[in-house]
Amino acid sequence: MAATAVGRIVLGNSSRSLRAFATASGGKLKVGVVGAMGVVGTEMIKCLEQTDFPLSTLRLFEGRDIGKEVKTAFGTSKLEALSAEAARECDVVLLAVGDDISKEFAPQIAGGPNKTVVIDNSAAFRMQDDVPLVVPEINGELISGAGIISNPNCTTSIGAMVLWPLHQKYGIKRVLMSTYQSASGAGEAGMNEVISDAHAFVKDGAVPPPKAFAHQLLFNVIPHIDAFQANGYTREEMKVAWEMVKIFRCDIKVACTAVRVPTIRAHGESITIETEKPIDPTEAREILRGASGVRVVDDPDAKAYPMPLNASGKFDVEVGRIRQSLAFGANGLEMFVVGDQLLRGAALNAVLIAKHVAKERIGA
Amino acid sequence: MAATAVGRIVLGNSSRSLRAFATASGGKLKVGVVGAMGVVGTEMIKCLEQTDFPLSTLRLFEGRDIGKEVKTAFGTSKLEALSAEAARECDVVLLAVGDDISKEFAPQIAGGPNKTVVIDNSAAFRMQDDVPLVVPEINGELISGAGIISNPNCTTSIGAMVLWPLHQKYGIKRVLMSTYQSASGAGEAGMNEVISDAHAFVKDGAVPPPKAFAHQLLFNVIPHIDAFQANGYTREEMKVAWEMVKIFRCDIKVACTAVRVPTIRAHGESITIETEKPIDPTEAREILRGASGVRVVDDPDAKAYPMPLNASGKFDVEVGRIRQSLAFGANGLEMFVVGDQLLRGAALNAVLIAKHVAKERIGA
Repeated sequence: MAATAVGRIVLGNSSRSLRAFATASGGKLKVGVVGAMGVVGTEMIKCLEQTDFPLSTLRLFEGRDIGKEVKTAFGTSKLEALSAEAARECDVVLLAVGDDISKEFAPQIAGGPNKTVVIDNSAAFRMQDDVPLVVPEINGELISGAGIISNPNCTTSIGAMVLWPLHQKYGIKRVLMSTYQSASGAGEAGMNEVISDAHAFVKDGAVPPPKAFAHQLLFNVIPHIDAFQANGYTREEMKVAWEMVKIFRCDIKVACTAVRVPTIRAHGESITIETEKPIDPTEAREILRGASGVRVVDDPDAKAYPMPLNASGKFDVEVGRIRQSLAFGANGLEMFVVGDQLLRGAALNAVLIAKHVAKERIGA
Repeated sequence: MAATAVGRIVLGNSSRSLRAFATASGGKLKVGVVGAMGVVGTEMIKCLEQTDFPLSTLRLFEGRDIGKEVKTAFGTSKLEALSAEAARECDVVLLAVGDDISKEFAPQIAGGPNKTVVIDNSAAFRMQDDVPLVVPEINGELISGAGIISNPNCTTSIGAMVLWPLHQKYGIKRVLMSTYQSASGAGEAGMNEVISDAHAFVKDGAVPPPKAFAHQLLFNVIPHIDAFQANGYTREEMKVAWEMVKIFRCDIKVACTAVRVPTIRAHGESITIETEKPIDPTEAREILRGASGVRVVDDPDAKAYPMPLNASGKFDVEVGRIRQSLAFGANGLEMFVVGDQLLRGAALNAVLIAKHVAKERIGA
């Protein structure tokens, strides 16, 4: 089975040597998830299952409840304390932890006897020149041979999925983005806070002081995500600007306003683009219909357009409200994009990167 | 008192004849509110009180509960069925009803023996050439002599309050706006639906089918307000584009994406402008600090920026997150604006127009 699969793809020289290694693992990969019980970590485990990941052993690393048995589609795993030594026994390690832990552990885990590939969901390495920043549908070719691969910021990857096919055809000069970001961006604590505030509001008519957010999020919107920078933008907004340029390898000017809204787990993005070449909405819609990982939901008469409630739990990024921009005329397009922050914005993108690694190593 | 007040302002010829009329009303105006028990109507009554409107008689017109006594700061009024004849007994009539009723009644009420001025909150006359579309701080001079005066769309007037001072100084070429519009835009039914959905969610873990909105709004955002037009924009979005051009008397290109979010009564607007002249954020902030009806809330270190929860119930439109646009460079500015949809977006703006009428007629 593994041999047949390997036979299906043409392996380059670097991949040929890896094939020998993969065979030693029985044709499947040992995968580690760090931060496995967090909201992104648990989605990673689900994505591994839902994408039929060729997995021999699943190792789950956590900061607490060490030794606890966790049942997954791949069997039972015991939660382990993270050590570089243990993680290096894996072929692929998915990091769903904060910048600090990623920064400390990723370089120790990557490479080594098993040529371990680290796929990092934090911002620690995203802008580092020698670390590829990957959305597989856009620049999956950068995965090959890399020891550490960065997963983009959630807002970046959701927007990039839609903008890339248009960029290839029309050349994007400017991106104006205003976001409608869900509570899940602040992890489980964020989602819980919105829900528990709804309970408190119904019970007491008031909500307790905020913990996960700077202010009450229920019945509010907060134009503040991550730390403010000297230029008046937040780090979240700058991540979109910086990362889009790195992923597209093109000097696109991106101005983002990142706003937290009281939704649970899918991010919305109102996007205007100015393009080098004239862009026709009907043609743009057709291009997006043909794009992998993108779903066009754009039937106003049927009240069909992307919305967080509908896009939650979906792999595809949804795009609709596609129309010529009244601000830029023939060279501008408006659209509304929604993607699951935990999936394309984090876990799914990481697992799809891991799938590229698997395909290269064992052809599956 | 009335005579003194009249003496304080220099009256033009057209106003001189009105003064005789005003004297007959005892130096105060008879005001009618149509749709008085609706969410905008009740705010109009509050605004009349809070702006110390020189009011002799308050007439309240409604479609139901006729004869019911309503206590206000101006005494007790009985709800009356709307008739043009009755409304024409007023000096000023504020219409807080739908387009159809406005279209039918406004021309019948305006003018006549009392030179009745109709201030209409609907969209019925906004784009009619001979009807001024007024935000008093911007184009209050158009009020004088008009029989029907239109109140702009809520999203327009909130944004215009902030954009006008910048336009005067820098010349705005393009406006890119993405909105975060509250449930109050769909009236009391809209606000009630979000609240009752929160109750249903807490009680049953699910919400009933939507009535006030096209989809569930709680924990969701809906990029659809008002009817879709042939160009793919909604009527709400086009109102902002059309009305901004009419109010500013300038061919500004406006592209708006109007999105309903689960907040109660204040609208947010993420706005990017491209300007003719270079625009400096610090200078722009100072200009806005000096603008009447605008409050700068822009202290990121103190987590201070405009938010719907804070701006609800406030007369001033709040602006913050002011920064140079990364998309347009020196000739672009980004900002986040929030204003109470029921106040500056409707009732307050109408009452401030009425105050201009009062000042002209009786100098108060």
